[in-house]
Amino acid sequence: MSTNIRWHESDISRDERWSLLGFRGVTMWFTGLSGSGKSTIAVALERTLVESKIACYRLDGDNVRFGLNANLTFSAEDRAENIRRVGEVSKLFADAGLVALSSFISPYAADRARVRSMHEAAKLPFIEVFVDTPIEVCESRDPKGLYKKARKGEIALFTGISDPYEAPATPELWLKTAEMSIEESVRACIACLKERGVG
Amino acid sequence: MSTNIRWHESDISRDERWSLLGFRGVTMWFTGLSGSGKSTIAVALERTLVESKIACYRLDGDNVRFGLNANLTFSAEDRAENIRRVGEVSKLFADAGLVALSSFISPYAADRARVRSMHEAAKLPFIEVFVDTPIEVCESRDPKGLYKKARKGEIALFTGISDPYEAPATPELWLKTAEMSIEESVRACIACLKERGVG
Repeated sequence: MSTNIRWHESDISRDERWSLLGFRGVTMWFTGLSGSGKSTIAVALERTLVESKIACYRLDGDNVRFGLNANLTFSAEDRAENIRRVGEVSKLFADAGLVALSSFISPYAADRARVRSMHEAAKLPFIEVFVDTPIEVCESRDPKGLYKKARKGEIALFTGISDPYEAPATPELWLKTAEMSIEESVRACIACLKERGVG
Repeated sequence: MSTNIRWHESDISRDERWSLLGFRGVTMWFTGLSGSGKSTIAVALERTLVESKIACYRLDGDNVRFGLNANLTFSAEDRAENIRRVGEVSKLFADAGLVALSSFISPYAADRARVRSMHEAAKLPFIEVFVDTPIEVCESRDPKGLYKKARKGEIALFTGISDPYEAPATPELWLKTAEMSIEESVRACIACLKERGVG
């Protein structure tokens, strides 16, 4: 690393950062029912991006619920705060120049609209990906046994059962997973990123 | 980008990610009084790293206070939550493989210890940088006029005036800025990173 340090009063700009590092930041936001395949697609996409040397990072319940959002409950207020925080962190990753792959049920249109707005205000691209899987398919998969619990009434306010999922009306990408393989879904994501100059 | 997508059930591991992208994540945590020069050093370091093509991102009040932490006040409880959240986000950036440059007064030892612990639990390196500038020097600089306001009693609980700054006892890096130029401070940071395999 250079030790020829030049001190600039000003912060390095986003353009300088992205250009020098060869980065191009964007948030790709996966929304859909529990069991719809959001994380499966995001995991496969993440691997493809990293193997293509594209800086990216996946945000989902696994690395957020027990960390940043550990002090949130499942109340309506806290679910909104959960999405708000994750939206803000996605924005920071996109600003850093990474492809933020954010995978959250995010059932309420207003919460997603707020995340979109904060990206627009920061002039950062936001790609909403609707992982559209019929609830019967999600429920038959039920990878974590949550639908079963919800049907028994053991989980209050379960999206799709006892709480609404407000489907995106005009997502940038609409993955009808019942008609597509995972590979096809990932390819569609990559095409969407390429249209925005990533990859 | 490759469209030869192979679907893996498993997440990409941190080692795979860092190795494929040529990254090495670490959090460098700058603590010190208001006006101590934390941000000045972090800004100069950030530019040096980016120009050396090392992926990094600076977190400070400017990009956090009006975003992720916009719903926090300056109460003792909220100041702790402010540092906790920023610590968690630093950890995510370090996990992604970036050098997280986090610059916050973070006056309480317990809050900083918690951030250190969360990094240790995640097996991510944490470098505490004590930007040690005598308060007289900070107060004479007073870039934002905050010391003046604090002396007038217009700011309650101002660190160093009406609220304690608990200096780190054993920081990984101790920058006595009264005896060092900014360039020397940045060089010391770079040496510290190099010892940990960054750069």
